[in-house]
Amino acid sequence: MANPNPALVALVSQAGDRAAETPVSSLFIGRWSSRALTGEAIPDETLFALFEAARFAPSYMNSQPWRFAFARRGEPAFDRLAASLLPGNQIWAKEASALVLVASKAAFTPPGASEPILSPASSFDTGAAWASLALQASLLGWSTRAMAGFDKDKARAATGAPESLKLEAVIAIGKRGDPTLLPEERQPMEKPSPRKKMADIVFAGGFPPDC
Amino acid sequence: MANPNPALVALVSQAGDRAAETPVSSLFIGRWSSRALTGEAIPDETLFALFEAARFAPSYMNSQPWRFAFARRGEPAFDRLAASLLPGNQIWAKEASALVLVASKAAFTPPGASEPILSPASSFDTGAAWASLALQASLLGWSTRAMAGFDKDKARAATGAPESLKLEAVIAIGKRGDPTLLPEERQPMEKPSPRKKMADIVFAGGFPPDC
Repeated sequence: MANPNPALVALVSQAGDRAAETPVSSLFIGRWSSRALTGEAIPDETLFALFEAARFAPSYMNSQPWRFAFARRGEPAFDRLAASLLPGNQIWAKEASALVLVASKAAFTPPGASEPILSPASSFDTGAAWASLALQASLLGWSTRAMAGFDKDKARAATGAPESLKLEAVIAIGKRGDPTLLPEERQPMEKPSPRKKMADIVFAGGFPPDC
Repeated sequence: MANPNPALVALVSQAGDRAAETPVSSLFIGRWSSRALTGEAIPDETLFALFEAARFAPSYMNSQPWRFAFARRGEPAFDRLAASLLPGNQIWAKEASALVLVASKAAFTPPGASEPILSPASSFDTGAAWASLALQASLLGWSTRAMAGFDKDKARAATGAPESLKLEAVIAIGKRGDPTLLPEERQPMEKPSPRKKMADIVFAGGFPPDC
């Protein structure tokens, strides 16, 4: 950024239950994927700020492979999308303010080319767009949770997604609620998840054989 | 986040040459992938803050599929990794402060399971980790650029990456320099790239057939 804001840059070693090995912006360590959601309506300017963040993600040759179909709670498309989720996810995801089917399109036509080619990175790049969406949500006080466990045939039928799109995840967006909104056996899971050690994922010079 | 910082949340409609259709944090609209880099050394605390941000990305069943091998400019591993890039990328990437090979590992053992399973979202999730790394870099005043166009056999040999890892991208990390650091014909490209319209990537209720 041209003018990084000092408050943005401030690094922390702890956010809630999580500890960082190296200080990092609280934006990253403070975000987590909630299940207990209030179900309240999400304003347009909030929902579209999330998509806007995703829109500015980087991608292979600027191919921008990400595509999003959204539905708000109470709309028929929301119920169809919710019904594509695995039963364990439906329990809580029906209280989301919006559900979003995230898809990727590998085919794109580079500038100056006459024929489309396939990006080798369309899922990877769409994941970058998803993270941008999730972080913008967190900045605005909203929670997101992506689910890759869903019935792809049902989700494709629910949204009319053409075969050219690979279905990546369903995202639940909502305001974090009290854990008691969840069934009792799920309440203990309602907290930030732990992480592998840095030494298990980052290597100097090359990868060990068993990483 | 528990305590969003008002400065973080402030939304803008413009950052440099870029316009947003809906106001969005300048973090997203202000980040772009530079090629003109100064080659200066990157401090450990900066480099590891970037990996730390990646470490806290969300993932399928918290599988954390991302793996990173890094090398600093001047190290033999840096030259090996640079040599795996397509010639057009080598020209500028050799002036990076560090190069990072980003890989994903689909196999993981869920909590309580005895056998590993394959994540359906390992590339997608690793893309989320890459975006987190890129945004943390931007917050700290550093630039990143991911390249999916590289010789995978060379990169695998350069880093000893086991076959269990899918090689996703090589990331160049550096301080943005003057465009005149680049060959003359490349200097006009040294600016933020445009984006598709929101209406081309975001759809209410379902996808159109030609999206």
